[in-house]
Amino acid sequence: MSTDLMPNRYRPGEVSLPEREAALIARRDAVLGASYRLQYRKPVHFVRGEGMWLYDPDGKPYLDFYNNVPSLGHCNAEINAAMAAQAARLSANTRYLEPRVVEYAERLVDTFPAELDRVIFTCTGSESNDLALRIARLATGNEGVIVSAYAYHGTSAAVAAVSPNLGDAVNLSPSVRIVNLPGPSGIPDEQANEFFEAEVRAAIHDLRRRGIGIAAFMFDSIFSSDGVWIDPPGFLNGAVAAVREAGGLVIADEVQPGFGRTGAHFWGFARHDIVPDLVTLGKPMGNGFPIGAVVGRRGPVETFGVTARYSNTFAGNTVGIATADAVLTILQRDRILDNVLTVSETLRKGLEQIASRTGGILGIRNAGLFFGIDIGMGASLPAERRAMALDVVNAMRDNGVLISTTGANEDVLKVRPPLVCQDEHVQLFLRSLEDALRIITSR
Amino acid sequence: MSTDLMPNRYRPGEVSLPEREAALIARRDAVLGASYRLQYRKPVHFVRGEGMWLYDPDGKPYLDFYNNVPSLGHCNAEINAAMAAQAARLSANTRYLEPRVVEYAERLVDTFPAELDRVIFTCTGSESNDLALRIARLATGNEGVIVSAYAYHGTSAAVAAVSPNLGDAVNLSPSVRIVNLPGPSGIPDEQANEFFEAEVRAAIHDLRRRGIGIAAFMFDSIFSSDGVWIDPPGFLNGAVAAVREAGGLVIADEVQPGFGRTGAHFWGFARHDIVPDLVTLGKPMGNGFPIGAVVGRRGPVETFGVTARYSNTFAGNTVGIATADAVLTILQRDRILDNVLTVSETLRKGLEQIASRTGGILGIRNAGLFFGIDIGMGASLPAERRAMALDVVNAMRDNGVLISTTGANEDVLKVRPPLVCQDEHVQLFLRSLEDALRIITSR
Repeated sequence: MSTDLMPNRYRPGEVSLPEREAALIARRDAVLGASYRLQYRKPVHFVRGEGMWLYDPDGKPYLDFYNNVPSLGHCNAEINAAMAAQAARLSANTRYLEPRVVEYAERLVDTFPAELDRVIFTCTGSESNDLALRIARLATGNEGVIVSAYAYHGTSAAVAAVSPNLGDAVNLSPSVRIVNLPGPSGIPDEQANEFFEAEVRAAIHDLRRRGIGIAAFMFDSIFSSDGVWIDPPGFLNGAVAAVREAGGLVIADEVQPGFGRTGAHFWGFARHDIVPDLVTLGKPMGNGFPIGAVVGRRGPVETFGVTARYSNTFAGNTVGIATADAVLTILQRDRILDNVLTVSETLRKGLEQIASRTGGILGIRNAGLFFGIDIGMGASLPAERRAMALDVVNAMRDNGVLISTTGANEDVLKVRPPLVCQDEHVQLFLRSLEDALRIITSR
Repeated sequence: MSTDLMPNRYRPGEVSLPEREAALIARRDAVLGASYRLQYRKPVHFVRGEGMWLYDPDGKPYLDFYNNVPSLGHCNAEINAAMAAQAARLSANTRYLEPRVVEYAERLVDTFPAELDRVIFTCTGSESNDLALRIARLATGNEGVIVSAYAYHGTSAAVAAVSPNLGDAVNLSPSVRIVNLPGPSGIPDEQANEFFEAEVRAAIHDLRRRGIGIAAFMFDSIFSSDGVWIDPPGFLNGAVAAVREAGGLVIADEVQPGFGRTGAHFWGFARHDIVPDLVTLGKPMGNGFPIGAVVGRRGPVETFGVTARYSNTFAGNTVGIATADAVLTILQRDRILDNVLTVSETLRKGLEQIASRTGGILGIRNAGLFFGIDIGMGASLPAERRAMALDVVNAMRDNGVLISTTGANEDVLKVRPPLVCQDEHVQLFLRSLEDALRIITSR
């Protein structure tokens, strides 16, 4: 595992910066906490956004193939108008009766399997995952949680403690167990389900030997921080059965794959043909407005709601709801998922052609518009692959295209453009990637 | 302590409702989690807000003397315009260079004592308190937390575990200790500091006997959920010294008292003439937009930032920052704190006159526009006082004025109007309260 907390970042002194950016960084360092890290060796500076594009103060455009929050495009006018109209009318909390929150909740659960019919709103994906863990622990009476080897589920104390991706400085909970995914373990597709079930059963057994029952198996169905190891579809089935047999709940973290990112389905878990007990939402839900949710089966949600007092000041407020409602309307009305399927197919084919024409690509994995691209040459060592991936990302940044890295070794390109991406953007991206690979592989 | 999770709430069957509200509640119950409770015996239904007022679908106005989120008034046009303008230009995260977040952070720390010069943004007050606990625990290497007897610090698993106000169904952390406040313990003002220091020292000692070091003393400087037991100013001094002596940090939860609510100061802790190590912000920061922050001393914030990886997708995004910036501008430009002092003085005098003219008020406590009013008659029992406070709140609701209850016994009226409250609103509120008290005390 990469020991750097964030490999693709600015390090003072590594590059020389223009005076304007150097001055802004100095002011930033003097007032923001040290946890604020800037992406890219040479940070990007933005003052305007529109659709697929971000612009620096000189007007230089950057093609955004990275941000999965503004999934309907930067500064979407229709969504902003909905937000502004509601802000002018009413911003109320959920302790008052107000029709919009009910109407949106009904629309939202309609996108889920029938068993998942209850919603609790939050403000962020981290709050959603934190709440899902609280619900699972209270409903099962157990503490144990199983996550994937490089899982990242968010920033609160409780979810950071089940996020091995945060590295050694953030202690894991004594009641969390990590399991290996079949893909990065080199397991053939036909044995993947069996392998993963065995991993999860071993984790349950190990918890039990310490007197810890299983509260939940929590997974990001796109396995983003693990390196987008998503195949084969269905490999979660045995694990899900094992968790339920042991009395635990299944929590799908849809903060990244949700709201159509995977194209074929509105929710990433559908790709594996399972129905979780709790599903957590966040990032693209409000196209940038801070809103999230837990959608779940009535049983655990009701047990939690009747027993514990839970109320979240901003969550479900009318302005966030109106914004999320506009997002859902556009996703459905404009058939965005169809676009995701079409464009992602073009992107995948283009990547395969580049892989055959140039060196440097060892593997391509995607579900819809979430791609993981393994970078490396033949028998290159992990550190060499990581350096090469970083070089590619930063060459593309200099060339005006935004992506980053992921995975245990940070040698996987993480590519996840807004879902309104068109063929012209794909062609620009492919050209930029091929240019970067040609230069770097020919050194 | 009241065993009801939320005494001032709708209970199905207790009152008969108009068809419109009954139908909306039925739909709401079918899709929202059971944790969603409606305020008041007969829920209020709002479709529009403006300044100090909320309106139901029939156009009936309700004077808002309760909501401390829209502290510059419902649907403030200037704030909404700032939000909309930024949303049309750029909504960027903090991994890119962007000047607005730096400028606002500089303006924000300027409102604090010089020692508090670092900011980390969050999306909610709960996220702020959760992060402050993470920082304190990592910086001190300790786990122990001390809070007041009926403290409420938020919704995440970690802060719910240090929130005794949530009641028996939400387990407290084994490393939390609760301390009694001097006011509700009947301690005379001149002994308050000594009493409270002894409470905190005993808690530190008790933790130590179990091998638990002290990470933080966390307090809401308005002690809202304890019943607004805020006097005498300065009673925290000995406790703060004891915590520091034992190696712990002092965390001021300013989610409710912050941003001018107390009138004499921008931050509630200033009333006690102390400088905390970490301060947490939320509710009114964006007048309804989900934004919060931790402001702290460089030492612990840097230790955390360098060691742990922390990044919050929505926090510090340009739209939230622009909104919060407009709030801060109005607070300062329009001298809102002066208004708080003037209006709160009128309100206090009016309450004192009502107390002398009618029965039913046993005590009045306030700092600026945060009031706690003890309700009861002579030697009435706790349950009688609680019932009477609930009757007052619901009579006022029927009369078009919004407040609620707080405190261990829920017999304290919680009154906290938006800070733009004017004399005319105070007079309306006082008349409504006096009417309610006359009817209820003459039964």
